[in-house]
Amino acid sequence: MTSDTIVSMARWQPDARGRLAAAALELFHERGFEQTTVTDIAARAGLDKRTFYRLFGDKREALFSGDNLLAEILVKAVAETDADPFETVVTAFRRVAEEIFADRLDLVRMRQAIIDGSPELQERELRKTNRLAATVAATLRAKGVGDTTATLATESGVTVFRVAFARWVAPGRDVALTDLIAEVAAELRAVTSA
Amino acid sequence: MTSDTIVSMARWQPDARGRLAAAALELFHERGFEQTTVTDIAARAGLDKRTFYRLFGDKREALFSGDNLLAEILVKAVAETDADPFETVVTAFRRVAEEIFADRLDLVRMRQAIIDGSPELQERELRKTNRLAATVAATLRAKGVGDTTATLATESGVTVFRVAFARWVAPGRDVALTDLIAEVAAELRAVTSA
Repeated sequence: MTSDTIVSMARWQPDARGRLAAAALELFHERGFEQTTVTDIAARAGLDKRTFYRLFGDKREALFSGDNLLAEILVKAVAETDADPFETVVTAFRRVAEEIFADRLDLVRMRQAIIDGSPELQERELRKTNRLAATVAATLRAKGVGDTTATLATESGVTVFRVAFARWVAPGRDVALTDLIAEVAAELRAVTSA
Repeated sequence: MTSDTIVSMARWQPDARGRLAAAALELFHERGFEQTTVTDIAARAGLDKRTFYRLFGDKREALFSGDNLLAEILVKAVAETDADPFETVVTAFRRVAEEIFADRLDLVRMRQAIIDGSPELQERELRKTNRLAATVAATLRAKGVGDTTATLATESGVTVFRVAFARWVAPGRDVALTDLIAEVAAELRAVTSA
């Protein structure tokens, strides 16, 4: 995706949060994360700096605006799925793949390249993933799954998602993320079977 | 462990790096991470601020001075162990448990409480764990293990270590870390078996 094709995203979004997130993505892509200021982002979105800080807290956070939706879908899928805990988490990530990621590969690649270029953003991403995992594990526990089993099923599911996601965003692939998740889950089962 | 019992650690260490790391741990424990400056740390260690920055880069890094040794032990153990990839990684973490963590539970608890109190330190810890995992996976690959298998075995091993470590540092436990790792590895095998 060239920056031309996304250049007006920032003003398309109906809400301030969406406009700021789109503006941040555009600018980080065009100029780099370090070179972009919160003032630049607010200006591109047609909003002011105070609105940015009220909604995001810091510059990094603007790249993670989709996390709440992602957590919501995961929690709902975990609550609804009737399978063993690991399979439940894998199924929930496949739901996320279908509802959030499918059809957005270009955008996801662009975002991931920005994250991969900044240790600060990588730290934030890891913390986000960790918090997401805690939410998923809590949802399993609420279904009556034991403490350690909930943690291990969640962490294994997150590993599966991360590996499948990395395959998906790698250049030259043309397999649906949901299929890659199923594939990697089978591989993890094989690797950990005694 | 009270701060009295560690108050002179910072000057016991023979090398600048060890003295600075010990001083940082003492001060973070006594005053809190946020409230401690690099100038304070250098002064406690009897060194100057420039030496600190040359050796650590930033304040957070002082809490992770043991990471190189840890990586070294892991890599050596992975290279030497003759077992399936997941079992190899688990064995390597048990080696680390014996060579680095055993007999240091009080110190480890103190350090972990500091990390748990700071989102900044948690981000750094996650990044460190991630980098360590990349090193372990690379060592497996160098032994001829396939790319995805190496990643999945490593990530699963890291999960086992993290869960076992959390159990170990939790109050009121009295089980050796190496035994907890073996226990959690068996639990993970059970959770991911179809």
